[in-house]
Amino acid sequence: MAVARITDVDVIDIRFPTSRELDGSDAMNPDPDYSAAYVILRTDAGDGLEGHAFTFTIGRGNDVQAAAIAALRHHVLGRSAEAVCADPGSVFRALNGDSQLRWLGPEKGVMHMAIGAVVNAVWDLAAKRAGRPVWKLLADAEPEWLADQVDFRYIEDALTREEAVALLRKGKDGAAEREARLLTHGYPAYTTSPGWLGHSDEKLVRLAAQAVADGFTQIKLKVGADLADDIRRLRAARAAVGPGVRIAVDANQRWNVAEAVEWTNALADLDPYWVEEPTSPDDILGHAAVRRGVAPVRVATGEHVQNRIMFKQLLQAEAIDVLQIDATRVGGVNENLAILLLAAKYGVPVCPHAGGVGLCELVRHLSMFDYVALTGTTEDRVIEYVDHLHEHFRDPVTVVNGHYLAPTAPGFSSEMHAASIAAHRYPDGSFWAADAADADLAERRKGTNR
Amino acid sequence: MAVARITDVDVIDIRFPTSRELDGSDAMNPDPDYSAAYVILRTDAGDGLEGHAFTFTIGRGNDVQAAAIAALRHHVLGRSAEAVCADPGSVFRALNGDSQLRWLGPEKGVMHMAIGAVVNAVWDLAAKRAGRPVWKLLADAEPEWLADQVDFRYIEDALTREEAVALLRKGKDGAAEREARLLTHGYPAYTTSPGWLGHSDEKLVRLAAQAVADGFTQIKLKVGADLADDIRRLRAARAAVGPGVRIAVDANQRWNVAEAVEWTNALADLDPYWVEEPTSPDDILGHAAVRRGVAPVRVATGEHVQNRIMFKQLLQAEAIDVLQIDATRVGGVNENLAILLLAAKYGVPVCPHAGGVGLCELVRHLSMFDYVALTGTTEDRVIEYVDHLHEHFRDPVTVVNGHYLAPTAPGFSSEMHAASIAAHRYPDGSFWAADAADADLAERRKGTNR
Repeated sequence: MAVARITDVDVIDIRFPTSRELDGSDAMNPDPDYSAAYVILRTDAGDGLEGHAFTFTIGRGNDVQAAAIAALRHHVLGRSAEAVCADPGSVFRALNGDSQLRWLGPEKGVMHMAIGAVVNAVWDLAAKRAGRPVWKLLADAEPEWLADQVDFRYIEDALTREEAVALLRKGKDGAAEREARLLTHGYPAYTTSPGWLGHSDEKLVRLAAQAVADGFTQIKLKVGADLADDIRRLRAARAAVGPGVRIAVDANQRWNVAEAVEWTNALADLDPYWVEEPTSPDDILGHAAVRRGVAPVRVATGEHVQNRIMFKQLLQAEAIDVLQIDATRVGGVNENLAILLLAAKYGVPVCPHAGGVGLCELVRHLSMFDYVALTGTTEDRVIEYVDHLHEHFRDPVTVVNGHYLAPTAPGFSSEMHAASIAAHRYPDGSFWAADAADADLAERRKGTNR
Repeated sequence: MAVARITDVDVIDIRFPTSRELDGSDAMNPDPDYSAAYVILRTDAGDGLEGHAFTFTIGRGNDVQAAAIAALRHHVLGRSAEAVCADPGSVFRALNGDSQLRWLGPEKGVMHMAIGAVVNAVWDLAAKRAGRPVWKLLADAEPEWLADQVDFRYIEDALTREEAVALLRKGKDGAAEREARLLTHGYPAYTTSPGWLGHSDEKLVRLAAQAVADGFTQIKLKVGADLADDIRRLRAARAAVGPGVRIAVDANQRWNVAEAVEWTNALADLDPYWVEEPTSPDDILGHAAVRRGVAPVRVATGEHVQNRIMFKQLLQAEAIDVLQIDATRVGGVNENLAILLLAAKYGVPVCPHAGGVGLCELVRHLSMFDYVALTGTTEDRVIEYVDHLHEHFRDPVTVVNGHYLAPTAPGFSSEMHAASIAAHRYPDGSFWAADAADADLAERRKGTNR
């Protein structure tokens, strides 16, 4: 029988006009248009299975991100589908080891996120072929195979392969019981929906109370634009949810180090649970200084942390209390495995960043694997939840009583509906074409059409 | 009189087939095709002046880099040429502050290098309009204006605006004498030409001896592929140049932390002056550990360091002895000003990375400004020199007796000859079109043409 090959690597620029509402606004990102630089791997296996994944962006530049994914095509096209699915790490290494492309990072920014998209598409395909969701594929895997999926380059001073294997072996103890528990109860979530900067106080209070009624035990507020506003909003939210519900605050990198310490301490009376992204994601020593300055408020970061090397240092420098992985910022599942292992070794809880387009769908797989077969706990761990754009995905998240249910469909839950792709392909999808026609008509009615 | 506007932002993918020779090879980059994602700003001023600049890449992905520059167009098109030239920092801030594009970094990788190219093109235009080379424009500027060109966000914990102004004021003392000295003697250089990994020992020894005869007091060898080879090559080079000439070694990020310490110490008897890029450019704490482990050998890095925030931490952590700025990796002249000021404050010498395409042409301006009007010294400071591709530039470097002469032509020396651009535009320039035709012919002769 002929070996099945990867025959197509389709790259699609998909955008949603989210900036037209005020949801998603924060101190650094006033008008995001949630977007996905989307990739589809097709094979000639004849089984109809495809690998889907994407990089999440917030609008302009999604075309640049798509161009970066396209630049990786030649590394995957023509490869044996079975071989890449048996060892997605080989794809990560091939992409990350392209010396000419590496110059554009290395291991950071547009090129690295592109690598993550292709690697995640391989995991989606691998899990579909295996008939299991990614979290289950990971949880069932042998410790040695999982360790081989990790690139230990530049992190061996903090985590060796031997240490990783030992952590993963230990994670096998009681995994079956935890899997059963996960399938029954799900994984804890927190919600950011109440706290966008664009909301009125009335809407904030209403959504905060609703979140508690819906079973969430943690919510998050965006802060950092105006201190008096933040104090007022945090006080209102605290009054709405009571003392037993955790309220995290998120500055989205708005501050310098000293400002982060002062601002957070000015909010401390209102008992924020963590302060997120107090300053630049690049500032490891800055985060360590902020953490010393704001304790007992916890410091959280990670959604913009570029790779395992930076996370390693955040842990080595004792700069964070909460590590926030992101499903599409780093080099895919393989690099997130490295980061989960680092966090497990250093005993720092992982609370993933999500929201955007499809981030909730993807990242739950990683936390669920971590619970079932690595750290074995959900204590002080929550996955971010935002109720946006899930309707575009074939295997959308379900959150019940403040918990993400475990996905059971094969794959990485990263596949959008074909109709959503067709409508939101930019700029020629049916939604955008109609939108352009509307804008053109409005211009003509104003008599200013050029 | 009408205000002159920026009317065009041309973006061009330019590539040179340097991988066909072995020059430029190192332990991480075996086959670079030196390339430039090139930008030209045109105005309707009628003075014929254009702003030229580029991001240096090593081949594949130069199209991605060009797409990123194109994504910035709308921030510059239509702006007053006079306004942007009077305040290039306003361009840096506008580009760096685009929240949707910022998501693709922030301040790192493809998008940040694209910002650097556009910012540098503004400096080229500004200096041409002012009739002065960029180094002289900077050296003549008022301290307050220069400080306003710096974005202190995320570095204020290490350097305040007030400290910057004070350093720049102090730099004015004796500037006229230093400028005269610079115009007579130039600025010290070192050469990497002898030490590429692809060279035979015979060629290495011959070029090392030639470098000394040419007046260089420092050379550099690529290392990191094979320890026995490195020892043999370093010994041969040391024998060729004698004990009085400094030999730096460059591992191009090849090692983990422990390996960097061991390997460097295995070379220590042969007295390497600095070890460059011993590990990942992202590993601040790793560099600090390497520095502690290899002293008195100096640790140098910077060509891949993504921004001022990372340089700040390398200095705060006492992780480097030598800071290597790069003209096209960070956010242009404005961010390099921040980095020069940080280095001046921490008393760490700056020895720029150069080579590639046009990096020598650009970066000399920054070191010469630093000498004339900031640190006031060339002690332990050298600019890298590689004899590649200078013939494509209108204002190429001249190195005499191991020193870069000061450029006197107006601008940033960043403009290529029109003929070079026309020939090396990829894939449709005359060189590449002929090359493709040759390849096609060769295929047909083999009878394998598809």
